[in-house]
Amino acid sequence: MKKRFLQVLRGEESDRVPLWMMRQAGRYLPEYREIRAGASGFLDLVYDPDLACEITLQPIRRFGMDAAILFSDILVVPDAMGCGVRFVDGEGPVLDPVRSRKDFEALRPFGESEKPERVYESVRRIRAALEAEGFHETALIGFSGAPWTLACYMIEGGGSRDFQKARSLAYRDPGAFLVLIDLLSDAVIAYLAGQARAGAEALQIFDSWAGVLAAEEFRRWVIAPTRRIVAALRAEFPDVPVIGFPKGAGPSYPLYVGETGVSAVSLDHNVSTRWAAEAVQTLCPVQGNLDPVCLLAGGVRLDESVGKILSDFSGKPFVFNLGHGIDKATPPEHVQRVVEYVQNWQN
Amino acid sequence: MKKRFLQVLRGEESDRVPLWMMRQAGRYLPEYREIRAGASGFLDLVYDPDLACEITLQPIRRFGMDAAILFSDILVVPDAMGCGVRFVDGEGPVLDPVRSRKDFEALRPFGESEKPERVYESVRRIRAALEAEGFHETALIGFSGAPWTLACYMIEGGGSRDFQKARSLAYRDPGAFLVLIDLLSDAVIAYLAGQARAGAEALQIFDSWAGVLAAEEFRRWVIAPTRRIVAALRAEFPDVPVIGFPKGAGPSYPLYVGETGVSAVSLDHNVSTRWAAEAVQTLCPVQGNLDPVCLLAGGVRLDESVGKILSDFSGKPFVFNLGHGIDKATPPEHVQRVVEYVQNWQN
Repeated sequence: MKKRFLQVLRGEESDRVPLWMMRQAGRYLPEYREIRAGASGFLDLVYDPDLACEITLQPIRRFGMDAAILFSDILVVPDAMGCGVRFVDGEGPVLDPVRSRKDFEALRPFGESEKPERVYESVRRIRAALEAEGFHETALIGFSGAPWTLACYMIEGGGSRDFQKARSLAYRDPGAFLVLIDLLSDAVIAYLAGQARAGAEALQIFDSWAGVLAAEEFRRWVIAPTRRIVAALRAEFPDVPVIGFPKGAGPSYPLYVGETGVSAVSLDHNVSTRWAAEAVQTLCPVQGNLDPVCLLAGGVRLDESVGKILSDFSGKPFVFNLGHGIDKATPPEHVQRVVEYVQNWQN
Repeated sequence: MKKRFLQVLRGEESDRVPLWMMRQAGRYLPEYREIRAGASGFLDLVYDPDLACEITLQPIRRFGMDAAILFSDILVVPDAMGCGVRFVDGEGPVLDPVRSRKDFEALRPFGESEKPERVYESVRRIRAALEAEGFHETALIGFSGAPWTLACYMIEGGGSRDFQKARSLAYRDPGAFLVLIDLLSDAVIAYLAGQARAGAEALQIFDSWAGVLAAEEFRRWVIAPTRRIVAALRAEFPDVPVIGFPKGAGPSYPLYVGETGVSAVSLDHNVSTRWAAEAVQTLCPVQGNLDPVCLLAGGVRLDESVGKILSDFSGKPFVFNLGHGIDKATPPEHVQRVVEYVQNWQN
């Protein structure tokens, strides 16, 4: 039984470039929308191991990606810490904001919540279902939001264009901000360890808002906590690769890789393949980095972009992926086309 | 009469690091808010040479920056082309969207509008006022939005988090998109040439949304039109430096500098000073790159950040600036503090 996704993350040879896509289980799929229509809220799906398992497998059955990623949401961690996460249609997530040291210290300890256990149960069921349905080559990825990105949502109380409240607090009171980041780092370690124990074969840390930080702040609030998380996970699960995704890190990607010790890194579409092949892929395996808007648009430019990514990255350990999550308006046929292109591609 | 801002852009020695700040004339200043309160709309200020001149000089009188930047808006170009630009309080700009080749070909030629003439008149008055008020060392910067960024607003019909409509059209129908980009490039050349003729001593091209593009698209829609604009301006005004600001270009900043031929480049706060000193400042003078949220927050971290920027960049031609425009909630005393820090700083 070979899982080419894991082979590549270990730096081994594989028979072809493995592929998965961020948010591959989600709203662009009619079979997902059908399940979603029958549930009262988005988090009901996330906390229902049967439904989460079913949704996770939908794109695997349809497209045969080389990795399945747990259907869940990065906001499970703040939800477990008592932030009252809810999803408002068309508006995105809403949370009860926390904005001071007192607020941070009053957060419920992550370990006291029952909610993560439901996620671990989903992981166990997905592993079993992949085997039962004959997907022996498909690896299962667990994931968490990174402390910085979670802090962004928790301080803002929802989404934002540039998360100015969080950035401002980090400048004004770095001591209080560190209290929150440390709490979140502990929670992320526990959460990812729980997923690894339940059977996740690789772990991805999504730092979706790393790019709004000034470079010095990036070292402090992205690199430092990630380094701690990676070290703790590696000590307990030396064989489970940890993939970092500091979206928008720009020229700081190499620093992130070097200083955090991640096993592999996911690249957003803002970085050029030529630059990243030299500056990042020489340090560790990379994932990426098709623009989801290119996938949405389709056509001849899609083929060209996929071809260029493959030729620039395929000499060294590489996993084909997007630079950000699939857009909900993406025609599934465009995904099918990319999957076939990558599967049939010869270096 | 020495203008240290221009000295640095020419690569010459200057007695100290020159300084100005993006959006230094604007809403954080009470004297600006007073003028704004008496006008019926934002564009009334932009098209009134007396008021635009007064507003441009406000930060110079208060802080003594080394460069004044014309008070105006990047959307003057689409406004002159008939896009019906209006500013809705709290919502930002709204435009009549253009979304097809037919729409683009129906745009009013930039040269037929009377509106740019009012801006040129502002430039003439500001030059005269700077002299009359004794600011003999203060250079005057003219500016325009870049074609890509203007196309973003024109296609979206306003602001957006990621300008997906424009990015999608560029992938789906690059031929039609090029029609718009070419029209805008011609308009930007004419507009900046008009400002240079009226007395602007340097020109800045703001590509505020360059960072939403995938790297290949960045070459096509940011670098290529900018190269054409720079070449046309240099041919007519060889002594007027052209500063590019491809915000969010990340690791593509060096490519942008090398391929566009800009005289200098403005850096956003996402790029680390250490990386940029090696990868960019070795190619041309740089401006930047304090995080405006750091300026807003103030305190000890502000001093530290300003000090680090100065030490990392001051060995080679460097203009102190922000990585993005001043936030409207910024206390003017924070600006004063930075101005004094930079003016008193010794390498």
